[in-house]
Amino acid sequence: MFESAEIGHTIDKETYKDEVPALREALLDVQYELKEKGDFPVLILIHGLDGAGRGETMNLINEWLDPRLIDNVAFAEPNGDETERPWMWRYWRALPPKGRIGMYFGSYYSDALFPRVYGKSDSAAFDKQLFDILRFERMMTLDGALVLKFWFHLTKDRQKAKLKALESDPDTAWRVTTKDWKHYDRYDKIRKHGEHMLRLTNTAHAPWIVVEGDDANYRNLTVARVLLNALKSRLEGKARVEPSSDVPPILAPIDNKLILDTLTLDQKQDKDAYKEKLKKLQARLNRLTRDPRFAKRSLVLVFEGNDAAGKGGSIRRLTQALDVRQYRVIPIAAPNDEERAQPWLWRFWRQVPAHGGITIFDRSWYGRVLVERVEGFADEADWGRAYFEINDFEHQLHGNGAVVLKFWLAISKDEQLERFKAREETGFKRFKITDEDWRNRDKWDDYRLAVSDMIDRTSTSRVPWTLVEANNKYYARLKVLQTVCDAVEAALDGGN
Amino acid sequence: MFESAEIGHTIDKETYKDEVPALREALLDVQYELKEKGDFPVLILIHGLDGAGRGETMNLINEWLDPRLIDNVAFAEPNGDETERPWMWRYWRALPPKGRIGMYFGSYYSDALFPRVYGKSDSAAFDKQLFDILRFERMMTLDGALVLKFWFHLTKDRQKAKLKALESDPDTAWRVTTKDWKHYDRYDKIRKHGEHMLRLTNTAHAPWIVVEGDDANYRNLTVARVLLNALKSRLEGKARVEPSSDVPPILAPIDNKLILDTLTLDQKQDKDAYKEKLKKLQARLNRLTRDPRFAKRSLVLVFEGNDAAGKGGSIRRLTQALDVRQYRVIPIAAPNDEERAQPWLWRFWRQVPAHGGITIFDRSWYGRVLVERVEGFADEADWGRAYFEINDFEHQLHGNGAVVLKFWLAISKDEQLERFKAREETGFKRFKITDEDWRNRDKWDDYRLAVSDMIDRTSTSRVPWTLVEANNKYYARLKVLQTVCDAVEAALDGGN
Repeated sequence: MFESAEIGHTIDKETYKDEVPALREALLDVQYELKEKGDFPVLILIHGLDGAGRGETMNLINEWLDPRLIDNVAFAEPNGDETERPWMWRYWRALPPKGRIGMYFGSYYSDALFPRVYGKSDSAAFDKQLFDILRFERMMTLDGALVLKFWFHLTKDRQKAKLKALESDPDTAWRVTTKDWKHYDRYDKIRKHGEHMLRLTNTAHAPWIVVEGDDANYRNLTVARVLLNALKSRLEGKARVEPSSDVPPILAPIDNKLILDTLTLDQKQDKDAYKEKLKKLQARLNRLTRDPRFAKRSLVLVFEGNDAAGKGGSIRRLTQALDVRQYRVIPIAAPNDEERAQPWLWRFWRQVPAHGGITIFDRSWYGRVLVERVEGFADEADWGRAYFEINDFEHQLHGNGAVVLKFWLAISKDEQLERFKAREETGFKRFKITDEDWRNRDKWDDYRLAVSDMIDRTSTSRVPWTLVEANNKYYARLKVLQTVCDAVEAALDGGN
Repeated sequence: MFESAEIGHTIDKETYKDEVPALREALLDVQYELKEKGDFPVLILIHGLDGAGRGETMNLINEWLDPRLIDNVAFAEPNGDETERPWMWRYWRALPPKGRIGMYFGSYYSDALFPRVYGKSDSAAFDKQLFDILRFERMMTLDGALVLKFWFHLTKDRQKAKLKALESDPDTAWRVTTKDWKHYDRYDKIRKHGEHMLRLTNTAHAPWIVVEGDDANYRNLTVARVLLNALKSRLEGKARVEPSSDVPPILAPIDNKLILDTLTLDQKQDKDAYKEKLKKLQARLNRLTRDPRFAKRSLVLVFEGNDAAGKGGSIRRLTQALDVRQYRVIPIAAPNDEERAQPWLWRFWRQVPAHGGITIFDRSWYGRVLVERVEGFADEADWGRAYFEINDFEHQLHGNGAVVLKFWLAISKDEQLERFKAREETGFKRFKITDEDWRNRDKWDDYRLAVSDMIDRTSTSRVPWTLVEANNKYYARLKVLQTVCDAVEAALDGGN
């Protein structure tokens, strides 16, 4: 992969001087068009060898383009806050919004490559990370992002010569660190594992661009032209990933029997016994979340269900048992403009708890495949691929130690009607019933199908859905609490 | 302050049951009106004694109001990320946006009170924190926020009885922690220092409400009524802090001689010598920022100046010397909607660097007293009090170890005209010149006055302005670098 970047490319001074002014002007034009349209972000990753011009390229892009429209982010070793979340969390957080250019100096690729180079991860762990990366970039590009990945390259001899030259002048010696020499000593390993990495993650829509970094003129013109051409063709509507091409078909069962139909929604639960059991379960949940082993885990709870099925009441029975410093309840409403300028899952990534933390979502990312599907707010291509993205998200949480539980609170159509009426009759409950609830009710069957698909496609042994028969609210609350307690206990005991 | 909350208030069951439905309905009404108007936030602080119903009140408010419009935040001991910033940083970060209710369980008051109770701070340190708090709440209320501070109280005997009762039932025993008993042992100290705290921070616009917490009916009705009445009168436009009443007068010198007039804008700097000096200063800056002692400091640089004065060029000469992982350049543009729903300084608080970090602002919070003043975007009352708020902000940064430097790059009106023309003639520089620049130029004298006021009111020995004569860009860049190096070196050596 690197051969053509080891042959001594150069551009002479005259050619360079002739070309630069028009190139800069053209770059600014496309940058403003990007801003104006505001419908996709650009993500530029800067990688490669020390001394091959990574920092200089970053400065160049900031100098030739309008730096006010660029978000530069440099990543060091993950710190405390970051190590307590899935490893991709910090890259999600730093994403540029639509219309802007984000430039990552070091990225998830460094997190994968250097442990491999230094023998801290093996071939399987390395490939697993590359697979995580591929899914992330797939999500980004399907969402419309332009992703460009630069690898700046040098031969081993030229790297040594560059570092030596900098070191020989006392005023530039500081540019060479011991880390640079450590990397130099591992040149062959970086080249080898880097090649493997580039090969596995070089895709049509998030390509690697290998640039020989020895000659600044050559390097600068190459980067500028690549950037210009990529932006131009994306702005002309070319080179966009076709979203519909990648969605597996959604099947409906031919006998029309769905998973929700199998539930016995009326369950018995006497109120006095409920009170006793509730107290015991709350005490148990509290003990579990104070367990020292919980400090290495976290808990993510998702509540979905029919309108008026009792999500709020169930959530309150949970939070009554929790330390208020430990949990957050996130009611999901419409995204704000900062959130709308990002991939749709971004606003949920924002809320991922650190170790020891608990986040309870009152409605969630499943809106994408429920209301957005039923109401037609999202295209089929978008909600179709959402199953894949949701599974990926939840399994990243799980892989980082989170217990992730999802509850569907189900009530019958008759029970819902009674509750709607009761809410309308009680002054302080009227806020809980809106025209939208009545409209949703009219689409009962559409939701029934969407829920069934959702469960089939996103319930896994690691991150399961729990269906809660909720016509009797006492029964439902106890089942939720019991499920949470059992799952947390199993996790602390080393299961799941 | 607590006497009336130690006399055994109660509300009987009948009265409670009669009043609650109408109260809940009324609370929901005002909450939706708050949301609808969306022009101020509500901040509720929950404090007081263990067992006095703080957690129950938080649950009550979430149950009686619409929890989707409430942001609950519980504060524990500050963690790594938080201890590296000014202590108020985490409270800024968590502020509710306009139209919503934020409820803090524990707050900056806990950070002040408990170290005092446990002998970890003395009377002077305690009062210093209370003074910080007063300024913060003053800013909040001047910005329109409704701030309500609850202190839930119990007598010592009743506290003991409550804790004992909970402990005696195995299913509620978990509600009592060793910390609760530790606090109980210090009841007298908490009462004494709490009283001092409440007395000094009880203001008309951010009042303390002391509530006896023994009887749940009494407590609930009291909280609900206070909340309802406060919200009602604020929504009716009453009880709002009058912004203009608090702004010190702005004086203009009677001879019209301003600080900017004293500068000799044309300075000499030969290009070759510049290159040599630049290299040396960049090497020095790099050494300083890699100094182990810098890990306990941070650096905040502000660049303001006439249009075309060379801010971008100066900033690039700095960043060329810095590790890309260490700094961020923040170009200041118009706030987004998340930022507009907050006090005006909020978006700058967001960018405060942690220890070891460097943040460079290309334009800054000074826009408030420059463009917003000159263009009339902010009322005089608002930009007038901004001087006070800016000083407070910068001195909090300084107090936390930041070196804060502010540069005003000054060029002459003739020099500006030449640079404007040159920009218009060079394709890739045209983006740097807009109609707005020409409009600003027409207001040269208004800016001259605003800049002079700004410097007089915000340049202090700890957080000084540096005026940079910038007709010669080489001279200007060296002066900036020199100033930064000297200041960082002095700070590392224990000065400033």
